[in-house]
Amino acid sequence: MSTISEVKQKALLAKQAAALTSQVTTEQKNEALIAMADALIANADDIIAANAIDLETGRNNGTSESLLDRLALNHARIEGIAEGLRQIVALEDPVGEQLAQFTRPNGLSITQIRVPLGVIGMIYEARPNVTVDATGLCLKTGNTVVLRGGSAAIASNRKIVEIMRSALSSTALPADAIQLIEDSDRASVNEMLKANGLLDVVIPRGGASLIRTVVENATVPVIETGAGICHTFVDESAQLQMAKDIALNAKAQRPSVCNSMETLLVHQAFADKHLTELLAPMQEANVEIRGCERTQALIATAKQATEADYATEYNDYILNVRIVDDLEQALQHIAKYGTMHSECIVTENEQNAAKFLQSIDAAAVYHNASTRFTDGFEFGFGAEIGISTQKLHARGPMGLPALTSTKYMITGNGQIRG
Amino acid sequence: MSTISEVKQKALLAKQAAALTSQVTTEQKNEALIAMADALIANADDIIAANAIDLETGRNNGTSESLLDRLALNHARIEGIAEGLRQIVALEDPVGEQLAQFTRPNGLSITQIRVPLGVIGMIYEARPNVTVDATGLCLKTGNTVVLRGGSAAIASNRKIVEIMRSALSSTALPADAIQLIEDSDRASVNEMLKANGLLDVVIPRGGASLIRTVVENATVPVIETGAGICHTFVDESAQLQMAKDIALNAKAQRPSVCNSMETLLVHQAFADKHLTELLAPMQEANVEIRGCERTQALIATAKQATEADYATEYNDYILNVRIVDDLEQALQHIAKYGTMHSECIVTENEQNAAKFLQSIDAAAVYHNASTRFTDGFEFGFGAEIGISTQKLHARGPMGLPALTSTKYMITGNGQIRG
Repeated sequence: MSTISEVKQKALLAKQAAALTSQVTTEQKNEALIAMADALIANADDIIAANAIDLETGRNNGTSESLLDRLALNHARIEGIAEGLRQIVALEDPVGEQLAQFTRPNGLSITQIRVPLGVIGMIYEARPNVTVDATGLCLKTGNTVVLRGGSAAIASNRKIVEIMRSALSSTALPADAIQLIEDSDRASVNEMLKANGLLDVVIPRGGASLIRTVVENATVPVIETGAGICHTFVDESAQLQMAKDIALNAKAQRPSVCNSMETLLVHQAFADKHLTELLAPMQEANVEIRGCERTQALIATAKQATEADYATEYNDYILNVRIVDDLEQALQHIAKYGTMHSECIVTENEQNAAKFLQSIDAAAVYHNASTRFTDGFEFGFGAEIGISTQKLHARGPMGLPALTSTKYMITGNGQIRG
Repeated sequence: MSTISEVKQKALLAKQAAALTSQVTTEQKNEALIAMADALIANADDIIAANAIDLETGRNNGTSESLLDRLALNHARIEGIAEGLRQIVALEDPVGEQLAQFTRPNGLSITQIRVPLGVIGMIYEARPNVTVDATGLCLKTGNTVVLRGGSAAIASNRKIVEIMRSALSSTALPADAIQLIEDSDRASVNEMLKANGLLDVVIPRGGASLIRTVVENATVPVIETGAGICHTFVDESAQLQMAKDIALNAKAQRPSVCNSMETLLVHQAFADKHLTELLAPMQEANVEIRGCERTQALIATAKQATEADYATEYNDYILNVRIVDDLEQALQHIAKYGTMHSECIVTENEQNAAKFLQSIDAAAVYHNASTRFTDGFEFGFGAEIGISTQKLHARGPMGLPALTSTKYMITGNGQIRG
């Protein structure tokens, strides 16, 4: 079976390369990233030609224009992708950072340092820019990477990886630090998910179905990313204008992303006075409103929101609106339907704000700011490999330290245990 | 199916309780631990009576005396278990610790704090002391716990949990923070492993087969513990006496634990001069030697070590001995057969020591000290929930912070994303 051999063979090459990439200096890693950025720009025409094949295949398969647009590369976009690599150069290298240093009464000196994870498997869809971003982040942290992108971008990815691998030949990093699984069969994904001993972690980036597949089938450790059913709760004491601005931004500034809002919870006293005005900007932005009964009584055009609606990540211009009795009911709704991604309260009541921040169990909890800020760049971390929605290892926007592990180095002079 | 309902029902109770335990103060948690310790001692006779049932069942089932000894409880052991809880009281509470605090140019104030993981599933074998230790560590970190101990200790565990739950009634913590799965069917383990949304993490403690089952079947995040094929490399320049002491301690001080040595690697030049003397204490300690060909040429009594032997965690008085050409070959052997737990070099050569510490990929890497020190108490962390052999989240002896996650709390005054 050729599928098995491709994943195994490339993961093994990546593992062998990881022994090397874990030992190179920050300067050497930065030189490699710059060489890759330069090579992408120098070979932009080749990338655009390969991308044209993907676009034509997509058109022949009836792919939507919006998806084709996300897939399309041109000189400006390639410049942007190369610039992304240069920004990673500017980020601090976490590898080697000393996290703890202490001496035990028996004289053992114990130092804990950050080390690379090893081999990172990336499973993703659509956009070829992830191929470059993920590679840059993995190499900067001394890891190697096994990429498995969507079949829609396979020609682009193949060319991009060929250029990046070739660029490494003039650097201290081995070309084998970057591996692309070209087999588009689903079996290659499943094989990656069970490649214990070869892959140290798998990170899925894509829609809910991809992430579910990974979580349900992986025996390799996973960093779960992305699923976001985010809420904004407008409390009784919220400022109307602030509530309007935050809600509109959370829903409509970019509905396709995980940190956008799916359900607006409104305190009944606020709703009685302001619901129409609160939702007016939504309606201007062509957001479809699905409401609870109380919402429907106030907003004639609102369809009925079902249990299933509350549990859906629309990633679209659709918003559930539910009027709640109080903060307590809002907290219960979020505990029931939230995906522990980003949650917001708009209130002038400091006690309620504190209670919300303290008791909501999510990666990011906001008081009087849009959930759209849950993002590596917005947090000041730079490019991110994803936004973790799990509780182990890393939670929220993942900076470079999320791509590292740790190791204890212990020095003695003959100590034995009594 | 009653199995399904027991796990689901108890995990749900634990999840509801976790909303409460995450919010109580350190003082309240400590009061609860002390109440539990007092109650265990006050009810020691009941525990011993329940334990007698387990011991009788074990005897009837032909359980070995050494296993029965590990299972047996008496007043002194119960005092020790209660003392373990009091030691957890003395440990610093990581929950609420501020890990980062910064303000973005747009005025958003971002604080990252430690929070409990939520509900921790513990799947373990044999000794009833784990029931108490794990509960103490989970409660101290604001988590709740779903315990699934071995069937051999079920009567003891049932009584211990009953006493601990009852002790909580006079405290701020709900009794439902402690749940025991009483169904001894394997199906209850499998159900825990797939209880996404109810259990936040599963931690297995036990033999290689239990850990493999958990890793292969869990869709819930897992913290892998314990498997240890640990090596000691005696370099050319090692001091003979130090090498003898460290090797004997690593192998024979307590062979049944994960941080003991399974394979001794010896530099050929050292072996030529000292192998007989190096291994003399092993033979006095009745350690069976399995050697490579070169070892067999020097040690007449050595059996042949096979590939399978190098890949086996004996947890017993058996030792593989392999003579290697140099440091490089030792590193290769460890990379091939090690489980990334604890590895040691004995050498007077600082360069070789540095290379070993730097390039070995393991939780703990030692220079001139026994691998037996990889342990929460020995590192000064206090009681541990286990020793992580994975790279994500926590690696090595896990102190209380390993039982926490993090959360970003963001405060603004109306910020929206442009």
